[in-house]
Formats: sequence, C-alpha cells, structure tokens
Amino acid sequence: MVHAGCCIWEKIQAVLDKRLKELGIRNVYFPLFIPESLFKKEEQHVAGFSPEVAWVTKAGDTELSEKLAVRPTSETIMYDSYSKWIRSWRDLPLLYNQWCNVVRWEFKYPKPFLRTREFLWQEGHTVHATKEEADTQTLTILQVYRELVEEYLAIPVLTGRKSEKEKFAGALYTTALEAYMPDGRALQMGTSHNLGQNFAKAFNIKFLGKSGMEELAWQTSWGVSTRMIGAVIMVHGDDKGLVLPPKIAPLQAVIVPILFDESKARVLDECRKIGESLKKALSVHVDIRDGYTPGWKFNQWEMKGVPIRIEIGPKDLESRQAVVVRRDTGEKQAIKIRELAKKIPAILERIQENLYSRARKSLEGNITETKTWSEFTNAIESRKLVKACFCGDAACEEKIRESSGGASSRVIPFEQPKQQGICVKCGRAGMLAYFGKSY
Amino acid sequence: MVHAGCCIWEKIQAVLDKRLKELGIRNVYFPLFIPESLFKKEEQHVAGFSPEVAWVTKAGDTELSEKLAVRPTSETIMYDSYSKWIRSWRDLPLLYNQWCNVVRWEFKYPKPFLRTREFLWQEGHTVHATKEEADTQTLTILQVYRELVEEYLAIPVLTGRKSEKEKFAGALYTTALEAYMPDGRALQMGTSHNLGQNFAKAFNIKFLGKSGMEELAWQTSWGVSTRMIGAVIMVHGDDKGLVLPPKIAPLQAVIVPILFDESKARVLDECRKIGESLKKALSVHVDIRDGYTPGWKFNQWEMKGVPIRIEIGPKDLESRQAVVVRRDTGEKQAIKIRELAKKIPAILERIQENLYSRARKSLEGNITETKTWSEFTNAIESRKLVKACFCGDAACEEKIRESSGGASSRVIPFEQPKQQGICVKCGRAGMLAYFGKSY
Repeated sequence: MVHAGCCIWEKIQAVLDKRLKELGIRNVYFPLFIPESLFKKEEQHVAGFSPEVAWVTKAGDTELSEKLAVRPTSETIMYDSYSKWIRSWRDLPLLYNQWCNVVRWEFKYPKPFLRTREFLWQEGHTVHATKEEADTQTLTILQVYRELVEEYLAIPVLTGRKSEKEKFAGALYTTALEAYMPDGRALQMGTSHNLGQNFAKAFNIKFLGKSGMEELAWQTSWGVSTRMIGAVIMVHGDDKGLVLPPKIAPLQAVIVPILFDESKARVLDECRKIGESLKKALSVHVDIRDGYTPGWKFNQWEMKGVPIRIEIGPKDLESRQAVVVRRDTGEKQAIKIRELAKKIPAILERIQENLYSRARKSLEGNITETKTWSEFTNAIESRKLVKACFCGDAACEEKIRESSGGASSRVIPFEQPKQQGICVKCGRAGMLAYFGKSY
Repeated sequence: MVHAGCCIWEKIQAVLDKRLKELGIRNVYFPLFIPESLFKKEEQHVAGFSPEVAWVTKAGDTELSEKLAVRPTSETIMYDSYSKWIRSWRDLPLLYNQWCNVVRWEFKYPKPFLRTREFLWQEGHTVHATKEEADTQTLTILQVYRELVEEYLAIPVLTGRKSEKEKFAGALYTTALEAYMPDGRALQMGTSHNLGQNFAKAFNIKFLGKSGMEELAWQTSWGVSTRMIGAVIMVHGDDKGLVLPPKIAPLQAVIVPILFDESKARVLDECRKIGESLKKALSVHVDIRDGYTPGWKFNQWEMKGVPIRIEIGPKDLESRQAVVVRRDTGEKQAIKIRELAKKIPAILERIQENLYSRARKSLEGNITETKTWSEFTNAIESRKLVKACFCGDAACEEKIRESSGGASSRVIPFEQPKQQGICVKCGRAGMLAYFGKSY
C-alpha cells in the first residue's frame, strides 16, 4: 500500500480506535500463525475458510510437524486463549480488538484494495454472558461502522442481516453494511457477527454464572478493512483522479504559488506565511517545487484528490486575496487572505457534505424494486441494486445467482414491511432483501 | 500480546511515528509474502536469513508453483519496487517506513518479547544519492532511537558499530543500541544499517544523477521492535511485578478508595470527582470495584506497574488530603487534594528520572574493562559487560565466543582511544569493544 493509502488508513484507524476505546474495547495482538488443529475446531468455520488459507509447512529447511494457517481471521486462535482466561461472570463482558494483517488466498483475479490476498483490518472479538448482550454488541458495532463510513468516508450504506448463504462461516447471524459502486456492483464495507454459542462449544468457553451454574458463553466478532479505501476511490473519484473526503484526506489543502521571476521571492514568502497561518485549522502543504509549472502542479494535486487548492500569484497579493478551488465541483472563488483561516474549514465541511449527498443520490437512484423474475434479471443486467422479496433459503439463493448472471443477496433490512411478500424466484413466502452483483 | 503490552507498544509507536514524520519519513505497507526468487537476490542477505524463514508452500489444497517467504524483514520486497520507482536524483532521497509484523523462526527456546517467532516492529528503508547522505541517515536514526529508549523507556544504552560477524546480513555496516539486563545479558534494542550499494546492485536501483550519468543508489534500513517492551519489564521490574516508566505507562495513576459501609457513597463520589479533575493532566483510573479489599487492589496495581497509587479514605477526606504512593520507591506522602493536579505530574517526572538513573547506575556498575584473556572470561562469567580490545576479525570473534561460554561483541563505540590496543584473544592490533552474552 503506497503512502497515500497508508495515510487514509491511519486516519480511519485513529477515528475508529478512539471510538472503540470509548466503548471499553481494548487492543490486543494474537499470533499470525494458527496451528491446524486449532483452526479445524469449529466445523462450519473451517469449511468456509479452508479453500482460501495459505499454509506454512516449512521453517528454514525443516518440514513442520504440524502445518500452520496464516490467519484469514483470528477466531480460532483467540478463542483458544479465551477458554483459558474466562472463569466466571466477573470476567465478562470481555471486549478485545486487534489491528493486524490477514491473508485470504484468492484464486480469482485480484483487485487492488477490494480483493487482495493480504489486507489490513481490525477484528473485534467479544464474549458475553447472554444472547441479548451479544445482540446489543453486534448492533452497536454496526452503528459505529455506519457512522465511520457515512460521516468520515462520505459513503452512504444499506444495513441489515446477511442471508444464510452469505453469513460468516460459524456465525449465528451476520449484520453488514453495503455500499453501491459506480460500476453497478455492491461492496460489503464491514460486518458484525453474533457468533451465538458455536465457537464457545467448539473451544469450551464456559463461565460460572451468578447463579453458581456453569454456562456457555455468547460471542461476537466484527471487522472493517483497507477495502474501505477502495470504496472511497471508486465512489468519489472522477476522470481527473482521486477525490478525497476532507475528514480523511491526508492533506486538506495545497497552496500553489504562481511564480514570475520579478515577484518570485515575495510570492513564495507570502505563501509560506499563509501556509503557517492555516496549519492550526487544517492540514496544508505549500508546493514550492522548482521546475514545475503551476498547471502541472494543479493536475498532480487534483489527481491526488486534495480537497482544496489555493492559488496565489502577484496580482492576488496586490488585492490581498487568493483563488480557492474546490476539487469536488471545480468551483473557484476569490477569498481575502485574512479570511482564509475562517472560510476554508467551512468550505471543507461543504465538500464533505456534498460528497456524501452526491453518493446518496447515486445509491438511491440505483435501487430498483422488482416484483417479477423478469424485472429482477433486467434490473441486475442494468447494474441496479435490486429490492426484491426472497424466501431466505440458501438453495433458492444459489438458483438466483446461477440464473441471474451472478446476483447475490446483499442485506436483508432490519425493518420489514408488515405484510410478507412472495419470493421473486420460488414463490414461497419471503422477506424484503437487496440483491446485486458483488466484488 | 495482551492488552498491557499492546498499550505500551501504542505509546512507543505514537512517539516514534511522530518523530519519523518530522524527519520527512512517510509510511507505506508492503506485502507479508516475498516470492522466493526475490528473497534470494542478495547473496549475504539470503545466507543470513534463510535458516529462520517460514515458508508458505500451499494455498487451500493447491501446491504453489513458487514458495513464499513470510517476511523476516522487507528489504527484498521493497527494493524490487524501489528499482521501478526511482528514475532520477529528483526522486531522492526516498524515505519510507512501515509498521508491521515479521517472522523469524527460532529453533532455540523462545522468550516472551525478546525472542519470539513473530514480532511487531517498524522498518525504515531509505534511498540516497551518496554514501555521505546514507551515513547521516543511519546515524540520525540511531540518535532518534537513543532518545526514544533513554527518554521514554528510561533505559540507558551503549551505541556504536557492530562487528563484521554481528552486522546485518547484506549491510555495509550496522550501528546499534545495546542495553544491560539485570540477569547479566546484553539486549540489542535497535539497529540502523548503512546498506551501502549491496542491495542496489542486486535489485538494480539506479538513478540519473545531476551530471546526467546513471548512478547506483545508497541505502539504509533500520528497525525497533516489541522486544523493547521485554527490556522495560526486565530493567525496571521488581519482585512485586512491573514498574512502568510514566511516559509509556498505559495508566499513570490509579485511585483506590478505602471504603467503609457508613462513608462508602461519599468516598466513592469524591474519588470519582478527583479522578475527573486529574484526567486533563494525566491518565488516571478510579478502581471502584466491589468485592475486592483495598489491599488486594494495591497488589494488583503494583503488579501491573502503575507508577502512582492514590489512596483516599474517609479520614483523608476529613483532612482534605490523599495518600500518594510511588511504585518505584514505595515512598508514601500525604498531599492536599487541591494540590494533586499540580503535584502528581511533578512526581511522575521524578519517577521517570529515578528509573533512568537507577538503570544507568546498574549499566555503569556492570561494565568491566579487561586487558587479559583470563580477566575477560572471569568478567563474562560474573555476568558483566566487558570492555576489551578486539581485532575485529570474524574468525577471532567466533573463537572468543566458543572459549568464553558464548560471549559476543555487542558494539564497537564510535569514539575510540587515540592509541590502538591489542586484541584480548589473538594479540593483533584492535579497537575497543563491548562484549557480553546476549539473548
């Protein structure tokens, strides 16, 4: 991941890490390698992940006696420790998170940020005394993710449950955020699972309840990854390159001096001063490079997605103003230099809002509600997100996928109409769901 | 790594990351897996690291056509990209760093934090136009590390070059920080290498110089790891548990209410208020847990190494004071409640200084200068750091190791006496070096 991607990830990490800590969640770090015997303890989990696990079989020249999975996710290695740490209800809830890399071997064609063999993420793993507490934790995190994605990345999402077919391998149920990409595909932005007692059974995570009886624990796990950076690039970018939401942009504004020989020193000096004066209010860079024309610099910073460009030349200085250009709309305005520190933050806010509302319109404009199978396949073919009734059955969903050219259910909204509908494919009673092609 | 270790690592990361960014160094992230063909490109490097590389040979059920090294360090994968990115002197210096996990397969008995198969670290990798620039970069980073370790971790270090035998595989020369552990061993706290042009040759990293001629680049690499947390535990810890330097302690002070039935509500309430009032100046926690005695809490927080404990009971409240206890010395003092916010930060500073000066005394008191081989072996046997003259030859150093029960040269100080001495082992001309047993 090159520098710009890393900067965005650091911003995302800072926001989310602070929020998770406020919720009492604490960071830990577990090993990258999971011994095969641990990895295989929960049946559905191993079935779901086995095809994409990278295996370490040798160290130096020595064949290992037990092969090691490079973690695709850390349930199995963390819960082996949890079973040793948890003794009584006093140890609950146990609320841990880790920031790390994971590997999922894709045999399909990889796509930068969206589908890569290694990615960075956070994975939270909590343990609770009751199903209700685990339900609440699952939904609280989904809401935290939603705020992160909508307020910081300026990407609107649909939320809900995953179908039986699409849920996390080993979970009781999975909740998720889905976003709509301009190429017509849905992108899963994050998931939060209630694991029920499945892993607790497999890993023997029990606790002495308040009643004095031994009880099986309830668990959740949840994660978001560097994939979100790919969504930012796709949702907001245009033909000139990246367009970054101000709240996560590594650089919020760039000052480009317009230089002529006779006024060069004065303009550079003034630009540096303005840069310094803005540093308290935003992250700003003064591009003083020699040997590049202003036009070349404009293009480069546009490509990098910097939200605001400030142009300052000798004539601007005479009238004590600067030309301020918005990356999202291209809109130019002259602003008095003494007002920059006050006005630029307000413009950054408007850019943030504009990016969100533009993406919101695109999402809403690309949802099509369908009642019949032919409407359904037409809408999928036109790259829409399709709202349709669905029986929920995994076999029926497989048929839908096969006969629609690859559509899958993305989420089943928490709020359902009062009257049940009829499955668009099989005609059985069904619930409302969003379908689309995914990455 | 459990929560406390993670917190300390986060503190270290925050300090160092800020400092590196001030030096213009930018974060990137490269892949965990290094194809064997890349890994083998630099001869000395591959020879040095091969015995401890974990190899991925399978993905799912498929045997990979080329096996993949789990990075033990990232020179080979980063420099393959560098050779594509660098074209002219305008691209230099290139200053990148990454925070990541690395794996080095130890067949020896592992030790938590000090010698583990996986650890977290940062690795910086820079490219320069000249040897002089690379020299400067190498030493600048060594100084940054020294400040981090001495000022934040409160651990004094010896700095200098590594011998030919101990230098990094593939480097022109290695500089390092060494600390003295209470068990008599030396611990390498960080290294900063001038790689010369070795990797540039192997990976074809060339640039068009200002003169218009193509030139080979000069490189540095450098890193510190979670091993530093192990050093903190060993250097400052005592029989009661951890003793953490205030600057990196996850929690700087803990308030323990002394509760009696009749005054419980009032004392708890006051403790919470005091906790709130201290939060601006330091990180503080109020331990309001029910069902544990104050004594039990004292022990637990001592074990966790919290620098300051504040005890508040009903009698203290009457006289508007609290009992403040230092973790490093056990010293107790009564302080007026209204003065806590002013006085505690000053005490934290004194604890930080005391930990450093105690460790400094231990380091200095355990250095023995030796002239003869029998003095040398006696001092090594008495678990000292030995200052002795040494010819610098790798074969001679191997003999020293074998015949001293495992001593190796730790660093060769930059400042050498004007008159050259005679190697303590072979009698040839030599330079002054520190020897010791290491982890």
